[in-house]
Amino acid sequence: MELKKQVDVCVVGAGHAGCEAALACARLGLKTVIFTVSVDSIALMPCNPNVGGSSKGHLVRELDALGGEMGKNIDKTFIQSKMLNVSKGPAVHSLRAQADKAEYSRAMRKVLENQENLLIKQAEVCELLWEETEDHKKKITGLKTFTGAIYECKAVVLCTGTYLRARCLCGESITYTGPNGLQAANHLTDSLKAMGIEMRRFKTGTPARMDKRSLDFSKMEEQLGDERIVPFSFSTDPESVQKEQASCWLTYTNENTHEIIRNNLDRSPIYAGIIEGTGPRYCPSIEDKVVKFAEKERHQVFIEPEGLHTNEMYVGGMSSSLPEDVQLAMYRTVPGLEHCEIVRNAYAIEYDCINAKQLNPSLEFKNINGLFSGGQFNGSSGYEEAASQGLIAGINAAMSVLHRDPLILDRSESYIGVLIDDLVTKDNREPYRMMTSRAEYRLLLRQDNADLRLRKKGYEIGLISQQEYDALVEKEELIDREIQRLKNTSVGANKEIQHFLEESGSSILKTAATLAELICRPELGYAALAPIDKERHPLPSAVVEQVEIEIKYEGYIIRQKRQVEQYRKMEKKMIPETLDYDGVPSLRLEARQKLKEFRPVSVGQASRISGVSPADISVLLVYLEHYKATK
Amino acid sequence: MELKKQVDVCVVGAGHAGCEAALACARLGLKTVIFTVSVDSIALMPCNPNVGGSSKGHLVRELDALGGEMGKNIDKTFIQSKMLNVSKGPAVHSLRAQADKAEYSRAMRKVLENQENLLIKQAEVCELLWEETEDHKKKITGLKTFTGAIYECKAVVLCTGTYLRARCLCGESITYTGPNGLQAANHLTDSLKAMGIEMRRFKTGTPARMDKRSLDFSKMEEQLGDERIVPFSFSTDPESVQKEQASCWLTYTNENTHEIIRNNLDRSPIYAGIIEGTGPRYCPSIEDKVVKFAEKERHQVFIEPEGLHTNEMYVGGMSSSLPEDVQLAMYRTVPGLEHCEIVRNAYAIEYDCINAKQLNPSLEFKNINGLFSGGQFNGSSGYEEAASQGLIAGINAAMSVLHRDPLILDRSESYIGVLIDDLVTKDNREPYRMMTSRAEYRLLLRQDNADLRLRKKGYEIGLISQQEYDALVEKEELIDREIQRLKNTSVGANKEIQHFLEESGSSILKTAATLAELICRPELGYAALAPIDKERHPLPSAVVEQVEIEIKYEGYIIRQKRQVEQYRKMEKKMIPETLDYDGVPSLRLEARQKLKEFRPVSVGQASRISGVSPADISVLLVYLEHYKATK
Ligand SMILES: Cc1cc2nc3c(=O)[nH]c(=O)nc-3n(C[C@H](O)[C@H](O)[C@H](O)COP(=O)(O)OP(=O)(O)OC[C@H]3O[C@@H](n4cnc5c(N)ncnc54)[C@H](O)[C@@H]3O)c2cc1C
Ligand SMILES: Cc1cc2nc3c(=O)[nH]c(=O)nc-3n(C[C@H](O)[C@H](O)[C@H](O)COP(=O)(O)OP(=O)(O)OC[C@H]3O[C@@H](n4cnc5c(N)ncnc54)[C@H](O)[C@@H]3O)c2cc1C
Repeated sequence: MELKKQVDVCVVGAGHAGCEAALACARLGLKTVIFTVSVDSIALMPCNPNVGGSSKGHLVRELDALGGEMGKNIDKTFIQSKMLNVSKGPAVHSLRAQADKAEYSRAMRKVLENQENLLIKQAEVCELLWEETEDHKKKITGLKTFTGAIYECKAVVLCTGTYLRARCLCGESITYTGPNGLQAANHLTDSLKAMGIEMRRFKTGTPARMDKRSLDFSKMEEQLGDERIVPFSFSTDPESVQKEQASCWLTYTNENTHEIIRNNLDRSPIYAGIIEGTGPRYCPSIEDKVVKFAEKERHQVFIEPEGLHTNEMYVGGMSSSLPEDVQLAMYRTVPGLEHCEIVRNAYAIEYDCINAKQLNPSLEFKNINGLFSGGQFNGSSGYEEAASQGLIAGINAAMSVLHRDPLILDRSESYIGVLIDDLVTKDNREPYRMMTSRAEYRLLLRQDNADLRLRKKGYEIGLISQQEYDALVEKEELIDREIQRLKNTSVGANKEIQHFLEESGSSILKTAATLAELICRPELGYAALAPIDKERHPLPSAVVEQVEIEIKYEGYIIRQKRQVEQYRKMEKKMIPETLDYDGVPSLRLEARQKLKEFRPVSVGQASRISGVSPADISVLLVYLEHYKATK
Repeated sequence: MELKKQVDVCVVGAGHAGCEAALACARLGLKTVIFTVSVDSIALMPCNPNVGGSSKGHLVRELDALGGEMGKNIDKTFIQSKMLNVSKGPAVHSLRAQADKAEYSRAMRKVLENQENLLIKQAEVCELLWEETEDHKKKITGLKTFTGAIYECKAVVLCTGTYLRARCLCGESITYTGPNGLQAANHLTDSLKAMGIEMRRFKTGTPARMDKRSLDFSKMEEQLGDERIVPFSFSTDPESVQKEQASCWLTYTNENTHEIIRNNLDRSPIYAGIIEGTGPRYCPSIEDKVVKFAEKERHQVFIEPEGLHTNEMYVGGMSSSLPEDVQLAMYRTVPGLEHCEIVRNAYAIEYDCINAKQLNPSLEFKNINGLFSGGQFNGSSGYEEAASQGLIAGINAAMSVLHRDPLILDRSESYIGVLIDDLVTKDNREPYRMMTSRAEYRLLLRQDNADLRLRKKGYEIGLISQQEYDALVEKEELIDREIQRLKNTSVGANKEIQHFLEESGSSILKTAATLAELICRPELGYAALAPIDKERHPLPSAVVEQVEIEIKYEGYIIRQKRQVEQYRKMEKKMIPETLDYDGVPSLRLEARQKLKEFRPVSVGQASRISGVSPADISVLLVYLEHYKATK
């Protein structure tokens, strides 16, 4: 006899991806179970104690705009917050907050525990259950746990993170556990392989945690949070997040550090060839940095609190899998860490994940109806990357159960779209990390306008409340009205104005100009014009921000929007799912192979597959015209 | 190259025992490291969410009187508190508090993190290091962790709880982890065996955790906390613990429950013979209860919150290792649990521990200098039992490093003394649990007078501050003075008194009587006499409590003190460590064997070894007189 239950959706994993996926499904009215190896590690942050940062802050904002939880949760539990890159253009402004890790996890668990339609289950999922469909594809029917319980369901979302057949490495010593000594999930991989899913092995690493009392902060540079804190969530009242903040600290490695590392490279499991998995190029270990950037004299080291109620400090920038004695020696060369005591050693972790080219842009497996996946399991790295995919995978699992169209965000409307398109289109050979440079239309995809870009979609899906949506519509109106007003209000070359301009270090007017034109001058801006803008009404700062950016960058924005139109045209040229590439004449062999392997949904997607040239795309376009005409 | 460090004491384990041991050593000025498999599980409560209860409350009070931390920590983090058995005599009054588990763990971690001389280290200890002494005993010199780090030290305290080669069982499915999916410690056992330590295998179990939202509390009886809360710690200001409390709930099993269990006994790993370990007779699983008390129509089930910030509820009284489907079916027969959803399954855990007869009453290994142990590792069960032993083991590790005399509490002065004497003297064949009935001198060993009994010892050891000690001395004086006053103040048989007695339903006086005599009348008491006690000054309630008990129970107390004198005489008759029992004539063979095996420190201890008869003790006494005379 086995335990048998019927639900709508099963989410495997309660990390950052799984939490978003499960909340989305439950909030859309589906009976959902979320499985985790340990309830005590829900939304655990096994590595750095922060949310957001360059381009990752964008992801969190977008996720929030769509109705995800990460933004709200970090607003409840941050202990320091900072808008990065404010000296640069608005496209690269990015919010980053330090989390109280324990609080972050507890707050998210509380949200999950109180979500209607959602049940948390501490159980290891070992097997997926499926049947064959008429068109010889597979279709998910449920799953089985280690204790033999069967959950029948209509969709499964896999968010297993770094737990599948995980092993942790610290120098010569290897433990077969998930992060932080938690039980690994050793059984599911076989079931996935048996279903024809191609698995790969990636690795990542984390630095040591140190006892605060053993550090000398007088030798480091203090890093403070912003004076005026901006919340992550568009639904959080900015006043509610103004609070006292904790400090972080900056110090540097030096030649001594690097020498110790170089002298012990043979004892690093990576360089000694013990590690099989591929690590993230953009979150390298300190030994990688020392080897790859041999010319650099020093590397930044950020000392960050793991929470308000613990003395453990995270040593950002020095992740390592060197043996314990080398770790201690190398850390102790860093100013301020001379007498450091290590509470938890740095380590690397290896785990099974997939090549995401097996997925549609909806994050559903191409050949398995009802199977979705998100997060580190898809070959990405990072909490925000995980959460964003989890949300999309969860939404689309729900959409499939509800027989509604999937939500597919494209590269021109969101970083999330870029992230997923990169994952499913490019053959990533290492953990994928989001970066601003990956987005073509950066000026449009700002963190400040994520709500304007995506909240409506969240509302249509059903994850954004009427109230939240009404607030957006009002904001849009205020922005539009103010821009129109500024474009239509002109000021003459009179004495008052000329005097004002001279005082502001700006050149005087020859003829009349609109307020909008004046705002465009680099030395001026919306706030600066207050004295000469007599009809101005007070507006929320979020509205002012948009007005100013839209006016100042109008030229660039228009140009980028034109590029987007071109891009969209190609995205709209869909490729029939059953297209026989062998029947397309004049395709180069490599392109033919790649196209058969990836099976892109559109010509746009096809054009981004490496190995497919512009010439191949022309051939494909011609063929598709002909194909449509004949069908 | 290995990491090598020098410290004074290493404590292996950061459960309830390890935390007390490490704090004691560090507070006594010794450089101490506490090792744990996971920093996130410090002071974890893997089973019930409460501290104290019958006889266990006594342990916590005693530990607090000596300078331990558990009492203070539960005072900070309880969510309900109740003095049990108040309708019975003061000997069995017992305090029990429901903990917010996550808060309890976090608060204790904070205390550890901020304790001077103490370092927390997340590492699995794999091997003890030792050398041979001149007298062919062993002597601890250090230990080695899984990553190969060596810690040289003068004493080690083993508090490994349920982690050594742990495996968890839920019906047919077995996982090789410690409690709650945490990594087990699989290496240390071999090293201990290699040192000649005899290991055994015990087991224990825990019930399911349920989603509060799935329970129907209207079908259960609400269990409220006390109106006036008494703190655990003698150092806690009683006013600081008066707060809003959470409720618990009482419901019952029934014939249906029992039938489901009986029908599935063959699928229980215990009854199917899969479990090798021996379980605790006094914390039986529900299947044990149903089998062993077949005549009982129902068993109590307590539904208790796991904390304020979680929906998980503990199902007290229904621990089980039956398969998941049987669990769900049996729980759902209980009123209020008809639609219960299980978040974590019930399971049993097996682990390696020792037969504590290998220990001296100081909790040092008889044959290994500098090796101490406490907690579940010594074959006990329960948080309070663990903490108490941890404190004593820690204190005595410190005493040995400081070359001071060990602290040995006897059966006449504390439950802790009873606990340890039972553990090291009796051949416990199952996890040992404290019970009031195990203490011979119950009337003296009350929870209310633990400070009067033990605080001075804590002060002499160095764990009780001058201020705390001064408060005790003042309390003692107030008690003595008030008792004397009451014994010396007599009231005549005048009209006011007689009227008062009649009104109070007490018989009138024939001759004058002292206030103390009146207090002894069952229908009267200290408070009741207020109207006729003209010289009374207000006194702290803790003083009044002692005064009243001392007067009311004076006769019994005197009698019990006399018994204690007898007992002490035998305890003082020490047996030379090197005594050759083969040279003692007329000892029965069984007694000779047992004495050689246990090597008791005193005739008193010898008399409690099962298999040693009163006649054997007489023989031994005679021999020892002779022995002393000849030496
Ligand atoms: C040591 C370490 C270092 C890291 N370093 C970095 C870094 O430098 N930079 C960076 O950006 N990111 C880093 N990360 C990655 C980051 O932590 C992850 O990207 C993020 O946590 C992934 O979120 P997730 O939801 O995909 O998976 P996870 O957070 O790993 O969560 C996985 C969840 O799945 C559950 N689970 C897995 N298998 C099963 C199963 N079979 N049955 C039931 N439950 C299951 C687990 O219990 C868990 O709840 C690191 C992670 C680790 C562990
Ligand atoms: C499933 C379960 C059910 C229980 N049921 C009951 C019950 O019904 N009634 C009852 O009274 N008690 C019960 N208990 C027992 C109670 O939890 C324990 O008695 C108490 O927690 C023991 O405290 P401890 O300090 O001895 O050990 P634990 O709390 O087990 O702590 C052990 C510590 O040692 C560490 N450790 C172990 N080995 C190593 C190593 N080699 N290196 C480094 N660190 C190590 C661990 O990380 C941990 O910190 C149960 C426990 C469990 C797990």
